[in-house]
Amino acid sequence: MLTLPTYDDVRAAADRLRGHAHKTPVMTSRTINRETGAELFFKCENLQRMGAFKFRGAFNALSKFDERQRRAGVVTYSSGNHAQAIALSASLLGIPATIVMPNDAPAAKMAATRGYGGNVVIYDRYTEDREQIGRTLAEQHGLTLIPPYDHPDVIAGQGTAAKELFEEVGELDALFVSLGGGGLLSGSALSARALSPRCTLYGVEPEAGNDGQRSFRSGSIVHIETPKTIADGAQTQHLGACTFEIIRREVDDILTVSDAQLVDGMRFFAERMKLVVEPTGCLGIAAARAMKDALKGKRVGVIISGGNVDIERFCALLAPEARP
Amino acid sequence: MLTLPTYDDVRAAADRLRGHAHKTPVMTSRTINRETGAELFFKCENLQRMGAFKFRGAFNALSKFDERQRRAGVVTYSSGNHAQAIALSASLLGIPATIVMPNDAPAAKMAATRGYGGNVVIYDRYTEDREQIGRTLAEQHGLTLIPPYDHPDVIAGQGTAAKELFEEVGELDALFVSLGGGGLLSGSALSARALSPRCTLYGVEPEAGNDGQRSFRSGSIVHIETPKTIADGAQTQHLGACTFEIIRREVDDILTVSDAQLVDGMRFFAERMKLVVEPTGCLGIAAARAMKDALKGKRVGVIISGGNVDIERFCALLAPEARP
Repeated sequence: MLTLPTYDDVRAAADRLRGHAHKTPVMTSRTINRETGAELFFKCENLQRMGAFKFRGAFNALSKFDERQRRAGVVTYSSGNHAQAIALSASLLGIPATIVMPNDAPAAKMAATRGYGGNVVIYDRYTEDREQIGRTLAEQHGLTLIPPYDHPDVIAGQGTAAKELFEEVGELDALFVSLGGGGLLSGSALSARALSPRCTLYGVEPEAGNDGQRSFRSGSIVHIETPKTIADGAQTQHLGACTFEIIRREVDDILTVSDAQLVDGMRFFAERMKLVVEPTGCLGIAAARAMKDALKGKRVGVIISGGNVDIERFCALLAPEARP
Repeated sequence: MLTLPTYDDVRAAADRLRGHAHKTPVMTSRTINRETGAELFFKCENLQRMGAFKFRGAFNALSKFDERQRRAGVVTYSSGNHAQAIALSASLLGIPATIVMPNDAPAAKMAATRGYGGNVVIYDRYTEDREQIGRTLAEQHGLTLIPPYDHPDVIAGQGTAAKELFEEVGELDALFVSLGGGGLLSGSALSARALSPRCTLYGVEPEAGNDGQRSFRSGSIVHIETPKTIADGAQTQHLGACTFEIIRREVDDILTVSDAQLVDGMRFFAERMKLVVEPTGCLGIAAARAMKDALKGKRVGVIISGGNVDIERFCALLAPEARP
């Protein structure tokens, strides 16, 4: 039996996050509006605490811990941003945190997780099962497992970003959301259905990891090998039971984009909007630019999911020939 | 006889700019607050239209043109951001624009100036006198010369950035402002003295081009050779008559920072605040970090003057070894 969050849970999460999460700015660009013929609104979760929307879900989930859970601590597994989000939220709430991270996670993300006081446990994402490692640690030490996306409190927290977007700019014709495990997309769906019911809602994933699109179209969760894509935040192997159920019901379509389209998005954000955005954070803009004629005259939201990318990696992607 | 602008002119400029310039966000960073022990407020003019505060002064000046001036057109000289600002403002107001630019101006700035419809005239900044070229073009064609900083309407327009900052965050103990020719600093001084009279006001320039500091300390305008610094927006050879007079009266001190400190600032903004900032835009943060103990417990404003830097140059400065 699945416990699915509702928009009431998103509202309750927004109350818990008040004074802790940033109300991130919504930015616009005349250049992209001219290019697409649409009016785009970018919700800048790269400017969220620890650099990604993940803080919302993590802080919401940990805020609900009872006294015993707080004392014992939290465990999670994550390719990066959820790890930092749990580590930071736990440190703010005085909860011990254990984080299972892949050995190829970006150096900046691993350092930031440790910097927030998280106890990092390393695994190999191509040969080991992070979920099993997380469950074992939870059982052995009485820790509460907060997975990166498939959890009602995480989903409800992530939904607060879209809630803020709709509250600031009003109803939208379309909303583009990065899709990895589906926490941000399913949370956004709860807010979209409550605040902008006619909004067409798109999830966007890297074409190398199109398990979400295949799941959505086939009607059951498809598992894939860890996809090789620069969008390290979307290297998930499958949707969650909760996230899939909400996505199946509420999302209009799942689109895919190439790594080259993500690099174009990073360049646009840096050159024209002066924003550092990680590859996963460019899924939305890449899909919106690809379908531009269909968006003419529409009011379109795009959630920039995060900005945590090493400068060296950022430059290797955008300016491989740069020399002083 | 000098005509100096007053805070009333800044207020009038703010009225003219309403609906045309962005009210740019003020951002904060817990990391830099921890590092300095101060509470810093960053006024993000890198997120202004055309990527720098210069839009404010240019649009204000051109808005005041009479019918004859509008028909004949505007001419200016600029190392980059003022060029784009005049070109964009002129195109918005339907005024022909001629821009005298150095042949080593960043490619992005030159392309953007042409993209806004500006007629670009090239000169060599190490051997030719841009002011003379501008004056000659003005006389020959009846154009109105709007110089990059030494003009009351330009100064009043630039002052609207600090005005917005004080109106948003209240009075401050200190304010750090990039200093090239002094338009932003003198405009900021008008707003600071009106809205936060006890605020200590610092201008910050590159140590290779410390003409402002020498002028301030000696009491008369010092001319220097075009300084070699990565802060291309501060490669001015001297303050203006108007800007110097306001700076001499109202500014508390002029500080200098090295190019290496500017690169540290760019890295901080990119990694921790997810912002692309040009070298000149890092003058304020570099000086604030350098005097950190003196700022403990204070409320400190920093104006990020602009974000127009080629990605290739950005990466050459921050990640010279980057390879895919």
